[in-house]
Amino acid sequence: MIDKTVRMNYLFDFYQELLTGKQNQYMALYYLDDWSLGEIADYFSVSRQAVYDNIRRTEAMLEQYEEKLHLFERFEKKQSLLKDLRQMIENDRNPAELIRVIEALEKLE
Amino acid sequence: MIDKTVRMNYLFDFYQELLTGKQNQYMALYYLDDWSLGEIADYFSVSRQAVYDNIRRTEAMLEQYEEKLHLFERFEKKQSLLKDLRQMIENDRNPAELIRVIEALEKLE
Repeated sequence: MIDKTVRMNYLFDFYQELLTGKQNQYMALYYLDDWSLGEIADYFSVSRQAVYDNIRRTEAMLEQYEEKLHLFERFEKKQSLLKDLRQMIENDRNPAELIRVIEALEKLE
Repeated sequence: MIDKTVRMNYLFDFYQELLTGKQNQYMALYYLDDWSLGEIADYFSVSRQAVYDNIRRTEAMLEQYEEKLHLFERFEKKQSLLKDLRQMIENDRNPAELIRVIEALEKLE
């Protein structure tokens, strides 16, 4: 299991277009720019609790989108298959084996 | 430009998890099972206009999701690159060329 911050960075990357402007701002400052909850609260003149609640709700939304669309899960599978393919080419494996990996990639949406 | 029905079938496939139960039912009957608006209206005891409006709104939602997430667009790019790769392997092209296509695939999210 990967670290929660790394996972949230990925989920935010995949689904940020589905978030509202405010959710986007808080998440970008917290996860990408590494601001503290207190710094975000001061900057927007809101309570630290309000920022905390907003970010927790957004994290839950991102997990719900991932449960429905599986973009991060598929991305990891795709990268793993491409890595296999790359190694097989470097090791000069036969075409039939390469084609089997390509077929697996075609089946991933 | 592909036919609208084909496009809607793809968009529905990619984003159906984001639709409500009713939207899903109408779209599946109309696009996958090829029912007419009148048949759907009779089955659910609602007006033909209500079914029409619901389906048109759902189509607009699917296009909005595609504008934001580009899943269908990326799927087409991925399939096209995999097709190239398959042909290059069948034509015994050199590893460096294959690796370049794999790099393009890795950059697609």
